[in-house]
Amino acid sequence: MKLKMMYSYLNTDINVIEQSLEKTIEAESSLLRQASLHTLRAGGKRIRPVFVLLGGKFGDYDINVIKNAAVPLELIHMASLVHDDVIDDAELRRGQPTIKAKWDNRIAMYTGDYIFARALELVTEIKNPLAHQILSKTIVELSVGEIEQIKDKYNFNQNLRDYFRRIKRKTALLIAASCQLGAVASGVEEKVHKNLFRFGYYVGMSYQITDDILDFTGTEKELGKPAGGDLLQGNITLPVLYAMEDRELRMEIQSVREDMPRPQIDRIISRILQSGAIEKSILVSDHYLDKALAVLEELPQNRAKRTLRDIAKYIGKRKF
Amino acid sequence: MKLKMMYSYLNTDINVIEQSLEKTIEAESSLLRQASLHTLRAGGKRIRPVFVLLGGKFGDYDINVIKNAAVPLELIHMASLVHDDVIDDAELRRGQPTIKAKWDNRIAMYTGDYIFARALELVTEIKNPLAHQILSKTIVELSVGEIEQIKDKYNFNQNLRDYFRRIKRKTALLIAASCQLGAVASGVEEKVHKNLFRFGYYVGMSYQITDDILDFTGTEKELGKPAGGDLLQGNITLPVLYAMEDRELRMEIQSVREDMPRPQIDRIISRILQSGAIEKSILVSDHYLDKALAVLEELPQNRAKRTLRDIAKYIGKRKF
Repeated sequence: MKLKMMYSYLNTDINVIEQSLEKTIEAESSLLRQASLHTLRAGGKRIRPVFVLLGGKFGDYDINVIKNAAVPLELIHMASLVHDDVIDDAELRRGQPTIKAKWDNRIAMYTGDYIFARALELVTEIKNPLAHQILSKTIVELSVGEIEQIKDKYNFNQNLRDYFRRIKRKTALLIAASCQLGAVASGVEEKVHKNLFRFGYYVGMSYQITDDILDFTGTEKELGKPAGGDLLQGNITLPVLYAMEDRELRMEIQSVREDMPRPQIDRIISRILQSGAIEKSILVSDHYLDKALAVLEELPQNRAKRTLRDIAKYIGKRKF
Repeated sequence: MKLKMMYSYLNTDINVIEQSLEKTIEAESSLLRQASLHTLRAGGKRIRPVFVLLGGKFGDYDINVIKNAAVPLELIHMASLVHDDVIDDAELRRGQPTIKAKWDNRIAMYTGDYIFARALELVTEIKNPLAHQILSKTIVELSVGEIEQIKDKYNFNQNLRDYFRRIKRKTALLIAASCQLGAVASGVEEKVHKNLFRFGYYVGMSYQITDDILDFTGTEKELGKPAGGDLLQGNITLPVLYAMEDRELRMEIQSVREDMPRPQIDRIISRILQSGAIEKSILVSDHYLDKALAVLEELPQNRAKRTLRDIAKYIGKRKF
C-alpha cells in the first residue's frame, strides 16, 4: 500500500493544511514569495502535518484548531532544510534546484528565517502554553543538532552515541513533537499525548536511520541525487560507523573528501554495501520500529491508531 | 550626561538581565557556547532591555516576570546581527572579530538560529498571548526587512519610502515592541502600551537615521571600522539618498563597489559630507524625535517617563 493511501480519509484536511501552508508564507516582497513558494512546492511528504492530524484524532479534533500546530511544524521543518542546504552548499533537494542554486546562499539564509518567523506567528494562535513549551524546546534541540552536525562533519572518530544524539535532535524530536502537539491542541490527557510523543520519537529514529541507509542503497533516480551523498559531504551516518569497524575499510572511508572523483567514491560505497553495515543498520531501525509499535499498544483503540501503525511500518520498511 | 547614567537606578535589574542573557544561551556544545558568548560579550548598549524595563514601570513591575520579555528581545536583536554579519561577510562588529572571522559563516548562521531558539524558549514563560502576537509579528517584519536589505543593496534607484520602510522593519519595530512588551508583561492598560509602542517606533526611526549619519561622520575609532562602511557594502541610507539629489555626485556614488580603493571612497564620502545631505538627514531624525517626545506627553507622569525622555533626546542627538 502506498503511504498516501493509508490516510486518504484525511485528504480534505490535508488540503486545508496545504492551502494554509501557501497562505502562511505569502509575502509582499516578490523575492521572498518566490523563494518561499519554490521551497514549498518542491514537495515533500508532509508527514509531520499528517502526524499532527492523527495525534489530534485522540482528542477533540477540530481542523481549524489543529492546523495551527500542523502548518508551523511543516514550516519549521522546511526552514531547517533551507538552512541545511546553505551549509551543504547543495544544488539539489528532492530533485529540484535549491534556493541557493536558483538565487544564492544569502537569500536562502533569510528565506529560512522568514519561513520560520511565519511559522511562529501562526503558533501564537494556539492558546495552550504547553504547546509553546514543547515546540520551543524542540526548536532549541533542532538548532543544537544543526551545529553538532557541522562539528561532526568528516569527524571519523565519532561514535554511535554521537550519531544517535544527532538524529534525535535533527529528526526524531520534531516528529515526536508533531504527534504530541496534535494531541495537546485537541485537549488530550497527559498520559496519551506523552505516549504519542514517545511513539513519534521512535518512529523518527527509525525513519532517519532508514533515510541514511537509503542514501547508500537508493538509485540516483530514487534519491534525486547520486548515492553516497551524505558520506561525500562528511556526514557520518550509521552504515558508515558500522562499516568503519573493518579496519581496512575504515582507512578508505577516512580518505573521503568532497571533491573525490566519482569512480573512487563509488568503489567505497560498494565496499560499504558488501560489509554487512547495511544489514546491521536495518536491525537498529527495526529495533526502534518495534519500540514504536509497542508504545502504540498503550494508546486507546481507534482508526488513527491503526493508521499510525501502518505508517510506522511503512516508514521503517520503505525501500525508498 | 552619559547614557548609562540616565537609568543607573535600574542597575540591579540590568545585572539580572545580563546574568539571564548568559544563562539563557548556555549550551552543552562547547562550540555553540563559545560562539554565543563571544557574541554576547562583544557588548552592545542593551538598549532594548532597558526599554522593556522602563515600559514595565508603567504597570505592575516585577523583574522576574519582565526579564522574560527583556532577555528574548536582546537575544533576537543579537541573532539578527549575527545573520547580518553573514550577509555582509563582516570581519568586525563593535571593533571585535565577528563569528565569521573567528569561526566561519556556517557556524554564524547556526549560532544565530540557536540564539533565536533560546530566545523563543524563554518567551514561552510569558503567559499573556498578546505578548506572543506582538513579538511574532515583529519577527516576521524583521525577517522581511532583512531580505529587502539584500534586494536593495547597490540599488541606486530606490527612494526615501524604500529606505524608511526598511529601517522601520530592521530597527524601529523591535524597539517599539521592546517598549510595548515591558508594559504588556506588567499588565498595563491598552492605551498606555500602545502609546509606548508608538514612542518606541519614533525613537527607533530617529536612532537608525542617526546611526546611518554617524557611519559617515564618525571616526574609525568611534565606529570600530572605517567610515562609509554602509555605502561601501551597498547599503543605501538616508544621507546617500539626499546626496544623490545632486546629479554629478549621484554618478560618483553609483560607481561605488565593495572593492573600491580607499582614497576613492574617501573622496566620495567627503563630497557627501559637503553636500548638505547630513544636515537634511539630521532634520528628519529630529522630526521623529519630536514625534516621540510628543507621544510621551500622553503617558502618565512617573520616573520612567522622564528617563524615556532623556534617552530619546540622547539617542537622537548623540555624536556617537
